[in-house]
Amino acid sequence: MSKFLSQKLLSLKPYVPGEQPRDKKYIKLNTNESPYPPSPKVVSAINSEEIKDLRLYSDPDLKVLTETIADYFGVDKNCVFCGNGSDEVLSFAFLAWGDKGVTFPSISYGFYPVFAQLYNLNYTTVALKKDFSLDLTDFDGKGGLIVFANPNAPTGLSAPLSSIEDLLIKNPESIVLVDEAYVDFGGESAVSLIEKYNNLIVVRTFSKSRQLAGARLGFAMANEELVSDLNRIKFSFNPYNVNRLTAIAGAEAIKDDTWFKECVFKIINTRGRLTAELRNLGFNVIESRANFVFAEHPQLPGDTLYTKLKEKGILIRRFNIKTIENYSRITIGTDNETDRLFDVIKEILQEVSK
Amino acid sequence: MSKFLSQKLLSLKPYVPGEQPRDKKYIKLNTNESPYPPSPKVVSAINSEEIKDLRLYSDPDLKVLTETIADYFGVDKNCVFCGNGSDEVLSFAFLAWGDKGVTFPSISYGFYPVFAQLYNLNYTTVALKKDFSLDLTDFDGKGGLIVFANPNAPTGLSAPLSSIEDLLIKNPESIVLVDEAYVDFGGESAVSLIEKYNNLIVVRTFSKSRQLAGARLGFAMANEELVSDLNRIKFSFNPYNVNRLTAIAGAEAIKDDTWFKECVFKIINTRGRLTAELRNLGFNVIESRANFVFAEHPQLPGDTLYTKLKEKGILIRRFNIKTIENYSRITIGTDNETDRLFDVIKEILQEVSK
Repeated sequence: MSKFLSQKLLSLKPYVPGEQPRDKKYIKLNTNESPYPPSPKVVSAINSEEIKDLRLYSDPDLKVLTETIADYFGVDKNCVFCGNGSDEVLSFAFLAWGDKGVTFPSISYGFYPVFAQLYNLNYTTVALKKDFSLDLTDFDGKGGLIVFANPNAPTGLSAPLSSIEDLLIKNPESIVLVDEAYVDFGGESAVSLIEKYNNLIVVRTFSKSRQLAGARLGFAMANEELVSDLNRIKFSFNPYNVNRLTAIAGAEAIKDDTWFKECVFKIINTRGRLTAELRNLGFNVIESRANFVFAEHPQLPGDTLYTKLKEKGILIRRFNIKTIENYSRITIGTDNETDRLFDVIKEILQEVSK
Repeated sequence: MSKFLSQKLLSLKPYVPGEQPRDKKYIKLNTNESPYPPSPKVVSAINSEEIKDLRLYSDPDLKVLTETIADYFGVDKNCVFCGNGSDEVLSFAFLAWGDKGVTFPSISYGFYPVFAQLYNLNYTTVALKKDFSLDLTDFDGKGGLIVFANPNAPTGLSAPLSSIEDLLIKNPESIVLVDEAYVDFGGESAVSLIEKYNNLIVVRTFSKSRQLAGARLGFAMANEELVSDLNRIKFSFNPYNVNRLTAIAGAEAIKDDTWFKECVFKIINTRGRLTAELRNLGFNVIESRANFVFAEHPQLPGDTLYTKLKEKGILIRRFNIKTIENYSRITIGTDNETDRLFDVIKEILQEVSK
């Protein structure tokens, strides 16, 4: 850091994304990417004419993309906001509405406290229950901006829609931001409530269920006024925040609903297999509604599993947080990757039982 | 705006990008894009395998892109920072170093005051001289963050490197940010000074001279400590800020130096022709070192020229700022577009002289 850095940023602890080692080829089950490529329609839409048009700025209003998303979800086009990944959307949301304080779960997406620190916002956390579930009534009366992932990460557990509606009703002066990064894998979306509640914002990503992590595209759905707040920030930060090719990719990914559903179907199936097989091997596996499972083994410390898997060419993710330090978050891969994972875990279990 | 919006953002006036009307096909000379497509090597590098890999996150360290830029400019790879367009880089810079105040020219890139407002920073401006030139000694003693575009926009005038070095020497406790968006068209770059001065940061874009406005790619070059400040913010805002395809496009664009030089050569040639012809038609044209000219006509009000050109299918840019309200900023197009511009301006001059 330089001597010039703003005093306010001295204590900021940046987010640490999942590792991307380049020393060898790994089976990557550590950053919740899709094991399947984007729709062939995405691939064919990014043709050489579109690439040549990169000389031109992208549409700052992202008209085609925004309307495509709005049509798909059955919401008004003025209720959709797109960003350079959902991280940018979340960051704008913290800046827009976080000045009266932010509350989020003690264990959730590790970026929430970082956004709060970045903008010098006061924040508090609500603890998960012993079974790692989140009781949304714990947010009651917190005020300001309430943020949670549903399904939550890294647990994979989800809260029912009725409890979200209760939260909205009981806290009309708070903004409730539901981060639905993983909702397509089994959660209940709150999108249906955005017309009814002016304090709800639903954030989505193309990174998980739409196979576009590397394109960087996230979006929010909320009433028009909240969307106008986000646009106010976007047009004061980076009006062309989504690049031309990503805008095309996003629209095509939405339009190819068959591909989307097929990929989600396969991931959910593999998740079922992975959950059952890990349990057979003695793991405690939380019933996941996301594209990962969260699991621990009574005889196999989490750090040992992580290290030995990495040695054997498989990356998973673990977190140095006390209550979950024995747990591993394992992204759902292809069936072949999952077979390999089983074999390697069996090897490791044999090694540690010697 | 919603009732929930942070009080701090109520007076924020977002940036207004150049218009992108969709009612008909225009000759676009209003947003300083390149009239030429990106290098054929960019087009071929974005192949279907790379598009399929969009399922994977981009490299948060942007290793290949950063090293390619560093090699090209002969700087250490730790002295390069890439962003989602230079707007993002500028925004991070304001957040990182603007807390002791920001100073920029009264007439320059219209986004500077917006960034300052977004982060609630105090800012002051230094006036241009009557001939629209900028005297860098006017920044002496301003402290905090000093920002200027060199060449400046919309004037196209540039300051000599020696005056930048004087500024750095006389103001060692200020950060000097030189926005070199247009430098490839005739300015003198300050990159050679980044090793010598720890308070200098040079910001560049791929949008103008490298034909990639729609890919969104900008970068900064500065000493390692300043770059680490920007990375601290990036990893607290959006670690995957540059998407996969843009990272590829950027590296290929840098590597095809022949294409880059050829396009710049053509634009500079056309600029010469445009300048001479506009002067023949009675315009006062400022000698430009950018990919646009800034011009006024004593008998043709700027708003009339703008309106009539738009009616006839040509977009240019003007600014509602008192001292330059009669001036138009005209992006350098192809030679054909320039021929058409001459014809249309001649028509307009005949119309107004009747």
